[in-house]
Amino acid sequence: MTQECHDFGWGPAPDPLQRLGLVLRLARRNFQEQSGGPFAAAVFRMDTWELVSAGVNRVVPGSCSAAHAEIVALTLAQNFYASFDLGASNLPPHELVASWRPCAMCFGALPWSGVRSLLLAGSGDELEQLTGFDEGPIHPEWQGQLAKRGINVQHGSTQHEAVSVFRDFAASGALVYNGRRGG
Amino acid sequence: MTQECHDFGWGPAPDPLQRLGLVLRLARRNFQEQSGGPFAAAVFRMDTWELVSAGVNRVVPGSCSAAHAEIVALTLAQNFYASFDLGASNLPPHELVASWRPCAMCFGALPWSGVRSLLLAGSGDELEQLTGFDEGPIHPEWQGQLAKRGINVQHGSTQHEAVSVFRDFAASGALVYNGRRGG
Repeated sequence: MTQECHDFGWGPAPDPLQRLGLVLRLARRNFQEQSGGPFAAAVFRMDTWELVSAGVNRVVPGSCSAAHAEIVALTLAQNFYASFDLGASNLPPHELVASWRPCAMCFGALPWSGVRSLLLAGSGDELEQLTGFDEGPIHPEWQGQLAKRGINVQHGSTQHEAVSVFRDFAASGALVYNGRRGG
Repeated sequence: MTQECHDFGWGPAPDPLQRLGLVLRLARRNFQEQSGGPFAAAVFRMDTWELVSAGVNRVVPGSCSAAHAEIVALTLAQNFYASFDLGASNLPPHELVASWRPCAMCFGALPWSGVRSLLLAGSGDELEQLTGFDEGPIHPEWQGQLAKRGINVQHGSTQHEAVSVFRDFAASGALVYNGRRGG
């Protein structure tokens, strides 16, 4: 982690590097603690930049293939507000911050969630190359499709730190739990 | 519901019309009981054709935009087996039966779930035309992408019955809860 990705002490996190730093720390800690895969996400309100929820990958311990970090974070935020729609007119706008670009499922979940912004710590081929995790058949124009639905996609300057999480994960020998493992 | 879609008394359901009939009855009942949107899904084991789990849409009552019927049914089946992978080598193969073709999110969830077969009661433009529900930005080659991952997609002969659920839903004046309702 670079010094820029410093802790924000759970107060407001107006600097994108604060928000990105949180999800990268959680992604790393999740596999180190053997509580799930190397992925994390968080929901922030965009008026005050306060943290609403954080989620980590819980697929294996939760026996739930849909328990990706993004789904966990979005569900916790929606439960907090007792609203299935984080874009409801009585709520502030919300951003989802994720430690890596979304898989096919989490991409499809974003328009339903009501978030207005997606901030990514990293993206590219490194996930599949380094870890063997499969990102699934994501829409070939996923960023454009999100933009059409009013979700602004931003890429943080944390690609190196995001990739280093996967590199350390791969070196740890932890389980890669892709579906169809059973052959 | 046609006579072909008859009850199977919770025993084995080797006839596709038995399995399709179940999800169509549940989809209709879900909006009639005001317990969610007009969608249902179920997981069957493909060796004995016994029902493993059934799910209905729970987005609004559960304050959870990811609580689509398919996700609910898959999660319940995975929890039943204490396995995130319904395709694990120690399990029989499984089919997901759904009352309508998957949205973008549920499409992306299928490869992670481990199911080998997807049986659909209906598909087409009628959902969006009749109800205003949005199916999201699904992959343009979604059936081919599932086939590539070993998931066989089958369309039941129940298109008319599946559409009639949406027609009756639309006539009921129930809430269409698309994300971004807040504008």
